[in-house]
Parts: sequence; C-alpha cells; structure tokens
Amino acid sequence: MDAVVLERPQQIRIRPVPGLGKVGPGEVRIGVHTVGICGSDVHYYTHGRIGPYVVEAPMVLGHEASGTVLEVGEGVTHLAVGDRVCVEPGIPNPRSRASRLGMYNVDPDVRFWATPPVHGCLQPEVVHPADFTYRLPDQLPLEEGALIEPFAVAVHAVTKAGISPGDVVAVAGAGTIGVLTAIAAAASGASRVYISDVAPEKFAKIEAYPTIHPVDATRQELADVVREATDGWGADVVFEASGNPRAFDSLWETPAPGGTVVLVGIPVDPVPLDVAAAQARELRIETVFRYANAYSRAIELAASPSVDLGGLISATYPLEEAVAAFERGAEARPGDTKIQIRVAGA
Amino acid sequence: MDAVVLERPQQIRIRPVPGLGKVGPGEVRIGVHTVGICGSDVHYYTHGRIGPYVVEAPMVLGHEASGTVLEVGEGVTHLAVGDRVCVEPGIPNPRSRASRLGMYNVDPDVRFWATPPVHGCLQPEVVHPADFTYRLPDQLPLEEGALIEPFAVAVHAVTKAGISPGDVVAVAGAGTIGVLTAIAAAASGASRVYISDVAPEKFAKIEAYPTIHPVDATRQELADVVREATDGWGADVVFEASGNPRAFDSLWETPAPGGTVVLVGIPVDPVPLDVAAAQARELRIETVFRYANAYSRAIELAASPSVDLGGLISATYPLEEAVAAFERGAEARPGDTKIQIRVAGA
Amino acid sequence: MDAVVLERPQQIRIRPVPGLGKVGPGEVRIGVHTVGICGSDVHYYTHGRIGPYVVEAPMVLGHEASGTVLEVGEGVTHLAVGDRVCVEPGIPNPRSRASRLGMYNVDPDVRFWATPPVHGCLQPEVVHPADFTYRLPDQLPLEEGALIEPFAVAVHAVTKAGISPGDVVAVAGAGTIGVLTAIAAAASGASRVYISDVAPEKFAKIEAYPTIHPVDATRQELADVVREATDGWGADVVFEASGNPRAFDSLWETPAPGGTVVLVGIPVDPVPLDVAAAQARELRIETVFRYANAYSRAIELAASPSVDLGGLISATYPLEEAVAAFERGAEARPGDTKIQIRVAGA
Amino acid sequence: MDAVVLERPQQIRIRPVPGLGKVGPGEVRIGVHTVGICGSDVHYYTHGRIGPYVVEAPMVLGHEASGTVLEVGEGVTHLAVGDRVCVEPGIPNPRSRASRLGMYNVDPDVRFWATPPVHGCLQPEVVHPADFTYRLPDQLPLEEGALIEPFAVAVHAVTKAGISPGDVVAVAGAGTIGVLTAIAAAASGASRVYISDVAPEKFAKIEAYPTIHPVDATRQELADVVREATDGWGADVVFEASGNPRAFDSLWETPAPGGTVVLVGIPVDPVPLDVAAAQARELRIETVFRYANAYSRAIELAASPSVDLGGLISATYPLEEAVAAFERGAEARPGDTKIQIRVAGA
Repeated sequence: MDAVVLERPQQIRIRPVPGLGKVGPGEVRIGVHTVGICGSDVHYYTHGRIGPYVVEAPMVLGHEASGTVLEVGEGVTHLAVGDRVCVEPGIPNPRSRASRLGMYNVDPDVRFWATPPVHGCLQPEVVHPADFTYRLPDQLPLEEGALIEPFAVAVHAVTKAGISPGDVVAVAGAGTIGVLTAIAAAASGASRVYISDVAPEKFAKIEAYPTIHPVDATRQELADVVREATDGWGADVVFEASGNPRAFDSLWETPAPGGTVVLVGIPVDPVPLDVAAAQARELRIETVFRYANAYSRAIELAASPSVDLGGLISATYPLEEAVAAFERGAEARPGDTKIQIRVAGA
Repeated sequence: MDAVVLERPQQIRIRPVPGLGKVGPGEVRIGVHTVGICGSDVHYYTHGRIGPYVVEAPMVLGHEASGTVLEVGEGVTHLAVGDRVCVEPGIPNPRSRASRLGMYNVDPDVRFWATPPVHGCLQPEVVHPADFTYRLPDQLPLEEGALIEPFAVAVHAVTKAGISPGDVVAVAGAGTIGVLTAIAAAASGASRVYISDVAPEKFAKIEAYPTIHPVDATRQELADVVREATDGWGADVVFEASGNPRAFDSLWETPAPGGTVVLVGIPVDPVPLDVAAAQARELRIETVFRYANAYSRAIELAASPSVDLGGLISATYPLEEAVAAFERGAEARPGDTKIQIRVAGA
Repeated sequence: MDAVVLERPQQIRIRPVPGLGKVGPGEVRIGVHTVGICGSDVHYYTHGRIGPYVVEAPMVLGHEASGTVLEVGEGVTHLAVGDRVCVEPGIPNPRSRASRLGMYNVDPDVRFWATPPVHGCLQPEVVHPADFTYRLPDQLPLEEGALIEPFAVAVHAVTKAGISPGDVVAVAGAGTIGVLTAIAAAASGASRVYISDVAPEKFAKIEAYPTIHPVDATRQELADVVREATDGWGADVVFEASGNPRAFDSLWETPAPGGTVVLVGIPVDPVPLDVAAAQARELRIETVFRYANAYSRAIELAASPSVDLGGLISATYPLEEAVAAFERGAEARPGDTKIQIRVAGA
Repeated sequence: MDAVVLERPQQIRIRPVPGLGKVGPGEVRIGVHTVGICGSDVHYYTHGRIGPYVVEAPMVLGHEASGTVLEVGEGVTHLAVGDRVCVEPGIPNPRSRASRLGMYNVDPDVRFWATPPVHGCLQPEVVHPADFTYRLPDQLPLEEGALIEPFAVAVHAVTKAGISPGDVVAVAGAGTIGVLTAIAAAASGASRVYISDVAPEKFAKIEAYPTIHPVDATRQELADVVREATDGWGADVVFEASGNPRAFDSLWETPAPGGTVVLVGIPVDPVPLDVAAAQARELRIETVFRYANAYSRAIELAASPSVDLGGLISATYPLEEAVAAFERGAEARPGDTKIQIRVAGA
C-alpha cells in the first residue's frame, strides 16, 4: 500500500503510509484509480509552500481522484460497493456560517486534500464522506473522472459568470484551467470563445471545439482580437485564467459595456486595477475560490456530448513512476495539459 | 408587387398593396426573401382576432422575415445594399419608460408587424428601422434567417431562465416554440433536456440533438420522467411551452427545490396555480413576452455548430400559394414544425 | 414544569411533559420567556391538521420563542449562560442537498417545532442546537425577540423580492405577516408601501410608519390605488400576504412592467394565474417557504431604529391562561396582530 | 441673462451667453433655481481637464440643477408650465446599443452638461429633453432638488450593490458621494453603516442618522472596525467612495465571505487589486458610472422620511458670487459637504 509522499520540498518518496481508520457513519472507502497532478501539487513539490500553507511534515500529495467504492459506512444510501466515483477533495464544516449560506468553499475550516497538514489521495485507498463522493455516469471513464476536479473549477467560474445564450467570451490563459473554462463556456451558451496564450502549443487540445478560437498572445492582444470580432463592442464575459500580472494591462479593455470579468487565475502579488476603465464600462468583476455545489454540474456536462475531457490527458504514469510524473509536471511543457498517475487501488 | 392580405377572417387574397413611402433617416428598404408562418398569423386567419387585437381592416400578414437590403437611409452605418438580413418585427418607442429600462418588449406603444392595425411583411418589400434589422453571418442561409424570430422567443426565455452549466431542463410542449426552446437550452448549458408532447411525430425534428430526450405525454407524465431521471430531485428549469391548461396540473411538481419555471406558452384563460406546491420548492416563476435584445444572441447561436435551425423547416410555398400554406398551417399537422413562404422580393 | 399540550383537536391542557434529555455537544438549554401564537398553532388547535401534517398524538404547541440560555453544551462558543436569545424553530439536516445549496428551508427532512410529530416550545425549557439560537442585542426586549420568527418570514420574502432603493411596494393582506412584510419593505428601501385589507382595524398598528399607506379593500382595489399613485406604471414589487384566492383576481395587474410578485400567503387550494396578464408585464413571481439565513438579518433590522416590533403585540397571557390565549387567537379579532404567552422559564 | 463661464483654467467670468434656441418637440425650457457645485466643476476650474476631457473653449459650468418649467414643447405630456423639476444632465442616444440594453449611462455618445464641449446649467435658463426632466414632489424643496444629481450616483451604486435587509455596510470616504451613499444604504435596508474618513469634521453631517457610524481613519482601519463589529465576519457590502489609492490596501479584507465591493470613487491611476484576498472571500466587485434609471428612485427616496438631503447644504451663494463659491469649493474645507449657487432664473 504505497503512497506518494512529499517528504520535504523537492523530495518525493513512494512509501507505505499508516493504514486508514475504520469507515465511519456517512463515509466510504474508495480504491483510488487515477489521480491528476495539479499545479498546486507541483508547487508544493518544488517550493514546499503556497502562500500561508507550508509543508512542515511529510504529506501525501494529490487531490484530483477517481476510483471505486470498496466499502460503505452506516447511513450511506446513494453509493454502493463497486460504484465508480470521483471525489470532491474539500470537506467543510457543514454547520459553519459560510456552509449554511451555500458557500462552503469559503468556509475557513475546510479541510482540503494535500493542503498542509491534510494528506492527499495519491495512495491506494482513501476514506471520505459519502456526501462528497459522486457516482460517475457509465459513459464517463475513470480517467476522465479524475479530471472532474479541475473541471469543477471551470464550471464554477462559468456558473458565477452567468453566461447568457449567444454571449461572446474571452479567456486569458490556455493552461489546464483556461482550456477547461473555455470548454465549459462553449458548452454553456457562448457562441464564440477567444482564448489567448503565449504558447501556441497549448491550442492543439482545443482544435476539436469549433467555437473556441485561439489567439497567439505573442502576436495579438486578446482585447484587440475581441474588439475587432465584435464591431468594437467587446466580450460579454472575460475569464482571467493566466494569473499573469501582464494580462491585467489590457484586461479591463476586453469586456463590453455591462460585461463581466471573472478572476480565476491567482497572481502571486497584487495586480493593477484600472478603476476608471472598469467604471467606463460598468464592469462586474467576480472572483472564484475553488467551487461549491459544482461537482454534479461538472459531471453532467462532462458526460454530455458537447464536452470531451479525455482529450486533455497528455500522459499517464504508474504510481511507482510518480517522481517522473512530478518532474514532468515541474517542466511545464507548453504542449502538456494534464498529467495523471494511475494508482493500483481500484 | 403582390402581398398576402387578410381581407377578413378566413379570407386571404394575394393582391397588390399601396407602395411604400420613401426610406427615411435610420431606415432601410428590404427585399423580402422568406417569411415563416406563425401560429398567430394562422389564428388571425381563422379567427380574425387574438385577445384584444381585432382585424378590422385588410392587413398584410407575416412577421418572421429575412431578406436583402435594397436601399439604406441617411445615417445608417452598420448595413449596406446587398446585405443579407433578418428583421425584428416590433418597433418600440425608444423614449418610453420601458425602453429606457432595457425592456422595450413591454412598451405598450410597440408597433408589431401583423398585429392589427399594423401591416406585416408578406410582401415583396418592407421599409424598417435599421436598428431592428440584423445582418446574417455568411454561414446562415436566408431560410434559417426567417427562423430567427421564433428562435429569439426561445433564446429570450432561456436567457431569463438563467440556465447554469449542467442544469437538467424540462420543456412541456413540442410545438415550434417548445422545440426551439429545447434546442436553445441544450446549446446553453443544459446537460439533459426532457421535452414532452402528446404528438410523438413532433419528436422527429429533434433526433439530431443527443441531449434532448422526448417524453410521450400520452404515456408518461413529464414530472414523473424528470423525477426518476434525477433521483427524485427534479429539473433545475422547466419551460411551459404548450399553453395547455392541463400542463399546469403537474407543472409545479416538475422543478427541483429552488428551481425555476418559465411560462412561454400563452393559455387562453387563467390556469390553476398551486401556490403551496410552488412554495414547498420555493420556485421562481418567470414570464416572458416576445423578446428584447435577443436577436443578436439568437443569430450568434443559430450560426454556431450546436444549433441547426434548417431541420425545422417542414415545407416551403411560393408566395402565390400562400393560401395553401395557411391552410396547411391551420391543419396543424403533428409532424409539421415550421411552414415558410418564399417571397419574390430578394 | 407545565407545558401547553394539544391533546387532540380543540383540547389544550396545561400539564407536565417528560423532562428534557441532557444537553449534547453543540446544543444549549434555554429557559423560555415568551412564545408568540402563530396562525398555524391556532389551526392545529381548531382543526388538528394543516395539509399533510396531522396531530396524531399529544403535541406541545408553539414555535415563536425567546428566552435565556441556561446551559451550553460542548463546543458551543458563541453563546454563554445568561445570554438573551431567540430561537429558529426548524432544524434541517446540514448534509442534505438543499442545505448544501444554502436553501435549508426546503430540505424535506427539516424538523420544525410544533409541526407533527415534533413538539413545540410552549414549555419552560427547551434544548436546541446552538447554531439555530441567536443572541439578542441589548436594545431588543425578549418580547420582541419572540417576534423575530414571523419577522424572519417577512425579511426572507423581502430579501427574495430584491427591493431596489425607491421602489414602490404593494402588500395584499394586513395580517401579522402582511404588516411585518410592509415594515420590512419600508425599512429596506421602499419609498412607499401600499397595504390593503378588508378589516381597517388592522391598520392601527402601522400608523407609526409614515411610508406605509393603508388601502381599505372594501372600498378600493389595491391595483387601482397603486396605478393611480404611480401614473399608471404599477408597483415594483407586490407581496401577496393574504392567502385569499380573491386577491389573485387583480394581483397580476398590480405590478409594473418588469415587476415582481412574491407569494407569501398560502391559499388552501390552487388559485387562478392569468398567464397572459403576467406575460404582458413580464412579471417575475417568487415563492417563499419560511426562511433560510434570515434570522441574523431580522434581528439586525428589528434592533435598528427604523423598525419597532413591540407595537405589534396586542396582548400577553401567562402560561396558565394559554387556553384563553388560544381562544382569542381563534377569534381572529381584526384589531389583533400578535398574541403572546409569557412562560415562566426565563 | 448672465451665465457662469469657465473662460480658461482658473478664470471664471459671469457674463451673458448666446440665447437658447427654440424649444423643440419633446423638450422643455427650464428656469434654473439652484445649481450644486460638483468636484468635477471645481476640477475643470482648477485644472482645465479631467482625463481625456479638456476645456478648449469657454464653457458654462454646472450639472446639478433644479428649477421651474417655463415652456413645454410639442408632445410633452408629463410636465406643465410651473412644475418644479430637477434635471438629469446626461442625454444619451436612445437608439444606441447600450441604451437599448437599459444602460444608457455607458453609451459613449452621451452628451453631459459641463463636460467639454457641452455647456452646463449655471445660467438662468436651459432647454432640455422632457424625458430627462423630473417633477419634484411637493415636500421636496428646490434646494434639495439640486442635490438629486449626486444622490442619484449614490442610489445607483446602492442599487447595483443589491443590499439585502439587515446587511452590514461599510463606506470608505465621507465626501459628498460617500455620505450620500451611506444615507442611501441606510435607507435601503442596511442595519448598520460604518463610514470612514481622515477628516472627522465630515461626520457632523450624518449625526442625524443613528444607523450610520463614523470611523476616524486616522485612528482606526475601517476593516478592523467592521471585523470587530461583526464577530470577524465582515461587511456584506463595501462602497469605495474615496478614490484614494491607500483605501485599497485593506479594502479586500473588509467584506464578508460572499460579500460585495462597489467601486464608486475614481482613483486617478490604477490601484492594487489583491486577487488572492478577494478570491479567498469570493468577492463580487461592481463598478458604477454615473447612473441610469436612477432619478425616479432618488427623488422617491429623497422625499421619504428616512432621508434628509437639506442637511448636506453647507453654503449657498448668489450667481454673481459664483467665483467665491468656486474658490470655496477649491479650498475643500473638511466641514463642507455641498456648496450651491442660487441662480436667478426661477
């Protein structure tokens, strides 16, 4: 029963971890099948911290999991042994003020996989609340099930954006989250989605989507492309998914009057906000933090014909080659979208 | 220059009408190419009135038009001679209180084609405000351009519904508006759309849409199908597009808690509203009246790969056979969706 | 330790009930000070049932309570012994789908005081989850604390209405909930509130509110008054708080174009919905079920200078005269707003 | 017929200007009674420009006007000679895309009084579209009518904020707009409003409002005060009304999870946006530009008992002392809120 343990920054070991406790009421034991590597996993690996979250003790990595139910606890009715599932990695306090308001993602007490000091899911088995474990539809393979976590980020962002039918959408940044956001937007009523990046290799993954138009940011400003494509009016919704401070220079010029900007990327430092430019268009700016109540939506969309998550998997490594997987993640090859690890648990 | 004139109830004549005036500032002259027949046209033909609107003098029928710009008035910049266009048939007073609020569709002073005493567009040429004339994208044929009017009704309803990504949607009624609403919803983030009708012939037109599931209302209640398909939870959004009072018996049981009902169909008499049932789910009920600011959205969606309006055209008649076209419309064959008339004007 | 027990329809006894269990983790024991009598309490008393809820065994009545904390359970941090509190009487399952969405009021598993088979609070002491127990500000007396429950209904309705500053508001029905809704609306940005009732005695209680204008429904239609007061435009928001089917005849003519109707009253049978009239104004209709996340808001408003709940208390009876209190409630005197019972517990 | 003309930066002359044209259809001629001096008027006086708007020719100043109707043009039905009115100073193109969407304030073609090259209203008479001229209720004196313009800014900001009943609100900056925003928020459901400024003299004007609490920014951070007053939760809505870049340092820490920030002030340069801090609370940020459809609301609220605009008038000068009035405006005395000029026209 080997897990992928971050012993300290830049040192991962594949080694046994203490056994899980019993499956309590309302919980399930899951054999883990596939775990995607997220930028945050790589960042903990390379830097040992993200903002205030510091790895001070060995920690199992990974929070993007699919698998199979091995055991169900007392009172669990919507899941059965053998169910193929994906797992929402953050467990809030259901009685917190934020949870009661339906915003459990901003509950400060949420415990989230592979966010220190909470262990992640890169291990053969996990025990998890059944409430945060979701059955996959038959048509959705487990590999795609492990992509539901980042897709939920995109679906949550698109939900908060409130795309109206026929909207023109722009996305700054074609990393995993940017591409997933573009796909979610295209499936949610956007008639045209313009996505920009400085690395054109990234656009290969979206060639199958006729409504998504790549913009090579080394040659054209996203704001200019959008303005020209809309007779000068602008995009109805703009997603900032790069986290790059330079994207903010022309960000406020990209939306249409009355348009919306959704901040999905997380710049390390404060970025410039041109208040007067935003006011001149009376923009609404939404910020998002992970997701709440988005898993069911993400699974529904992923299983629908308008979305194909499988095409985003760039490579899959067995658990024992997890270090190589993380090394490749750290390389950040422009053509890579999602690197996954195949765990032996399910 | 013959027009389709409703001389009195049940009598249509194809005959010349007085010439148009000059094209004024901000107006365009349009050669009409295709006009779809709407249920309201047929109703004026068979009954001579719709509610308070009574045909008291000969009236040119038709309000679903596409065509080609023949002449542009002073100050028109976004259209040129030769442009392929479709036309929004209602002209509001732009200074009315409703217009200033962005709801020009509920301006009581709106003048709408083929709503007495205003003449419609079943004639070779019309003069219209350029503001309410929209250029068609190259990929959209003029036949589909004449379907933008009813599609705008659907797009407006879906816009007001506020579909979130992955929503489960139900539509009661598979007439033209019901089918268009299902298509618009499927293109706007609905993961599954259940549409019910008592005439299964109507479902042929939506076979090309894998996310739209027909429900034979002679054998199953829409509410039951939705409940079973959602583990008892219900639909996120329900569109009532039948106008049939019987649809309201189980309507309030179809949505999920916190769900939305959009009333698109227009029942002749008041229908029963089960307030307690609606409250138990804390439903929001939206009502729609034609559309406002929906044409651009509808055109964008119609031109996108997720929508194919052409498949909804059941038959096309030349102008001189307009009486036959209206007779067929009055038959209301279950397999018919849209009957169009090819006008010689463009 | 006597409680007010509904033994069977029309028979209340003041008698001891079994002692409470221990105070568990997250719970508090409360000495009950004041309990308001709600129409539902009276209805159980006179009819023994409300819709599907049937009194099949003796049940303690009452769900509008204030009191003092006598004991706090493990893990309770926001309350201390001696705190003056009011109590939210419905306890949902925090893990239900509805709860996770922030709509715990529509969770079908909610356990609500004095809704069979759950006992109410007309007893000297109750044990309750601390999460649903709220400290009262110093300026709010316990008598007014017992009015927070019905005020929360009003505040929830006003919250869902989404009143904008300067809105003109209409309220049909000046019972307790209607009056509280008018007060909440007036404190929430409504510039003028027109409230109608067939019993003018009810208007005495709102004389202190200069923005609330009574409409004698025996002499004038609310719709007519509103139309005249708004140059024919209509009310921005209309609350139906009478539950009277006759109110629905002109209800859909009362709002302005784009206006909102909130259904707060609960008619016994389905009422007529004039869909065409609602569509002509493109109305939004909101329905409400009790409240969620409204207690803090209601307490804040009740403690603010713009609201005086105390003026709504028509009479207070000691616990031992509870039968007389219920008899008076059953009389439904037009001049009565709220009858309260003073319990000995705090 | 003397007007207040900005001849060039820092030079105002009181001198005749060319007569007005005839009153056209849909227009009214207004005798100007009172004009408030806005910060923008002072800025044109002292600097000769605001951003891209440069005074290149003599321009009549002033855009905050009340007065009396002297003549009505053809087709004007809602106004009559002798009506006391206030005037919305921006005239949009009613056919623009923004206007049709109900956002005429962001129409780039809007013509706005005293924004170069458009003359303002500091003259005895003006001719204006009747659509943008509003009758004052009897209880509202003309002096307060001239305060409707800045109050409309506040009311628009509060409308876009969407204050819910009982919300806790914070306002950064107690200049005219900050104070008016606090007043509008307090009248629109806010239970408590915390307003901060570095000049405590400014708080004298709000002493009459018991729900508005001043925060001396030289001694306390607004974020700290709010946090302490809300058990660490934060404000539901925060208005940035200072335009001061330093206010943005702690701005993103002031709202509650799920809270809203409304940017009303206009910083000259881009300000720092701490995206991660905003995301951690999943803030919504609204920006506002002047107002649209806010005058009727502002007048309704100003005439209601919860608002007293008269208390904000710090001094009134006759037209012939306009230079002294502008000098005092340029002094920006901390105790001053609004300086007005009494024009002889009405």
